[in-house]
Amino acid sequence: MSIVVQKYGGSSVATVERIQAVADRVVRAREQGHDVVVVVSAMGDTTDELLAMASQITDLPDPRELDMLLTAGERIAMSLLGIAINARGCRAASYTGSQAGIITDTQHGAAKIVEIRPKRVLEALEAGSVVVLAGFQGLSSAYEITTLGRGGSDLTAVAMAAAIGADVCEIYTDVPGVFTADPRIVPTARKVDRLSYDEMLELAAAGARVLQARSVEFARRHGVRLHVRSSFDDQPGTWVEEVDGSMEGVMISGAALDTDEVKVTLERVPDRPGVAARVFKAIAAEGINIDMIVQNVSHEGVTDLSFTAPREDAPKLRGVLERITAEIGTDRFSIDEGIAKLSLVGAGMRSHPGVAADMFDALAGEAINIEMISTSPIRISCVIRQDDGERALRTVHARFGLDEEQSSDSSRA
Amino acid sequence: MSIVVQKYGGSSVATVERIQAVADRVVRAREQGHDVVVVVSAMGDTTDELLAMASQITDLPDPRELDMLLTAGERIAMSLLGIAINARGCRAASYTGSQAGIITDTQHGAAKIVEIRPKRVLEALEAGSVVVLAGFQGLSSAYEITTLGRGGSDLTAVAMAAAIGADVCEIYTDVPGVFTADPRIVPTARKVDRLSYDEMLELAAAGARVLQARSVEFARRHGVRLHVRSSFDDQPGTWVEEVDGSMEGVMISGAALDTDEVKVTLERVPDRPGVAARVFKAIAAEGINIDMIVQNVSHEGVTDLSFTAPREDAPKLRGVLERITAEIGTDRFSIDEGIAKLSLVGAGMRSHPGVAADMFDALAGEAINIEMISTSPIRISCVIRQDDGERALRTVHARFGLDEEQSSDSSRA
Repeated sequence: MSIVVQKYGGSSVATVERIQAVADRVVRAREQGHDVVVVVSAMGDTTDELLAMASQITDLPDPRELDMLLTAGERIAMSLLGIAINARGCRAASYTGSQAGIITDTQHGAAKIVEIRPKRVLEALEAGSVVVLAGFQGLSSAYEITTLGRGGSDLTAVAMAAAIGADVCEIYTDVPGVFTADPRIVPTARKVDRLSYDEMLELAAAGARVLQARSVEFARRHGVRLHVRSSFDDQPGTWVEEVDGSMEGVMISGAALDTDEVKVTLERVPDRPGVAARVFKAIAAEGINIDMIVQNVSHEGVTDLSFTAPREDAPKLRGVLERITAEIGTDRFSIDEGIAKLSLVGAGMRSHPGVAADMFDALAGEAINIEMISTSPIRISCVIRQDDGERALRTVHARFGLDEEQSSDSSRA
Repeated sequence: MSIVVQKYGGSSVATVERIQAVADRVVRAREQGHDVVVVVSAMGDTTDELLAMASQITDLPDPRELDMLLTAGERIAMSLLGIAINARGCRAASYTGSQAGIITDTQHGAAKIVEIRPKRVLEALEAGSVVVLAGFQGLSSAYEITTLGRGGSDLTAVAMAAAIGADVCEIYTDVPGVFTADPRIVPTARKVDRLSYDEMLELAAAGARVLQARSVEFARRHGVRLHVRSSFDDQPGTWVEEVDGSMEGVMISGAALDTDEVKVTLERVPDRPGVAARVFKAIAAEGINIDMIVQNVSHEGVTDLSFTAPREDAPKLRGVLERITAEIGTDRFSIDEGIAKLSLVGAGMRSHPGVAADMFDALAGEAINIEMISTSPIRISCVIRQDDGERALRTVHARFGLDEEQSSDSSRA
């Protein structure tokens, strides 16, 4: 008997009808002989509606109380799903994060899971019950209700899958899987059948929205196989798992465009030890996650330092930089909101030199200027003008042979 | 420093604006130097909306899951109130029934409180925090979330007030207090300043909706003083407490009309020991609470047996009676849905004989027929035709001098 964890996002449980469809799917998995743990997000826009009520009261709601409020969303979704599964004659019981033993630190709104105590979940499975579990939430070491922040429900699913030794963690979403690029921008994008954790991590960091890097990292560390698939049909989606050597033949797994970042440049920074550390420590202290950092060789003892950061953090960032630039003896910084980050990801890059050159060539052929470059062993990212973003994505996607087979397209046309 | 428990019903927290008003009131009580525990119901129609979603799925939702669902309502209200109080610079923390140590039996949907372990509540008060507490819910001895059934939030407030030794339990509602009769039917009805527990119990049992008998009974047993008052103004409402002998001068405290009952009659029941017991045991086994029971002297070894029961239980009752009447050897029963129960309540009845006669006389003067009579030391109830109900209530209300002083009325007219 294998254990399957299924995670359904907000759009998959947005209405009572959708919850009924999820219940059907859960019962099918149970009838196939699996032990099933279902993790749910709040229905549709519930979380946003709860947030809107809180913000009618104050711009800065008490974090403990806000977590208490938001966890009501998953509670509603999970108990309705519990009712629907029971109504099908299949025993099910729903559990809050607290009841399921999801123990977190005390950081309200962005808590980290520190431990899973799955005693009740295992007992319920043992008793033949489907376990429905609230995503996104836990109980802190101070016995307070916490939420896990963005992508929290995926993390709940992956962490519980690891804790109970599930065979697979299925992530149900409103798209059929992970694509070689966003199909809304690149109509010829293909669904990817299989990705390594590293590739999925790079794609997530590059702006692919289907999975948060945080959950993928957890899955990799604990060897949890992920299956990202659609809650609207029964087609297989994208498997994310440890990939052996034979897979290295796939050079490029996908391309992604991220338009949610800004580019920050500190000009004429003194090129001495400790300066960069002071800058990035001050930024980290504000809880801002920065991304690409580029520093080039210095001239006359000064250098330019650039990095990208989430667009939503731009106002906070401006405050930090005004303070820190005076301290470190540089007088100018700029925040450029007109950029996009284009990334190519593929484990095969390791063994295929020249990928970067091909990518730059493709962009040059479209007269698209590259402002920053950063690379990992399996990723190349370029900062370009935002206006060029979608055209650049389509160009690169085509150049690396990611487009769907033309035959099927032309036969349909 | 005194402890005040304040309970706000659904209409008092129906909107974010109303929650803000409640927060203002809570902060005022805190500033007056009280330790404050606030018990809240779900916002407005939230509970009904959650129930409607469940009934879209099935007519018989799993009771455990339904309790999980419904408790989301109080969670939303209490955390929004927590946010609002904190936003006023007054420390507050909200607690679920489970967190507050409200321990119940395992009867989902109608759980009974078996114990209160107020450790966290007392620690929070000690630390100077306002405690916001979810009404209507608890944690069962099997560690499952339960709800307390109808009037459950009042019960939470009264039970917590008893457990922490509060000086008063204020029940905030959308009316100014307990009235001598329902002002929608009797425009001249007056607010009552003070009632004994016994009187309030009889009024609640007689159909006055402002407080459930269950909470009043708990308050009496634990000596919790209740103050029923409006959440829309600062006027004193109605105090419910142990009343000493000097109060006995007030003969009649109020009159009530209950149109939510039906009258059941079993005709020609064999008049032998054990028959009534079999009837009422069978009814109790279905969880039906019956009210007035009347059996008169028998003729020729048979007698008629009548009682009243909640209108909503009529279908279930019919099933039980079809089964039991055959067993006990009576062939006929009837369920009359066209009745109303008119009650007069007053501690002074004990020392004023003739109240019943006056009541019957007043009804006779209006040509209103009395079908059943039952009395307690401080209550007289008559079953009459439902069509006569409102006229009868106004007549009796006037006869016993409960009408508002005419002077103020006529000066307004």
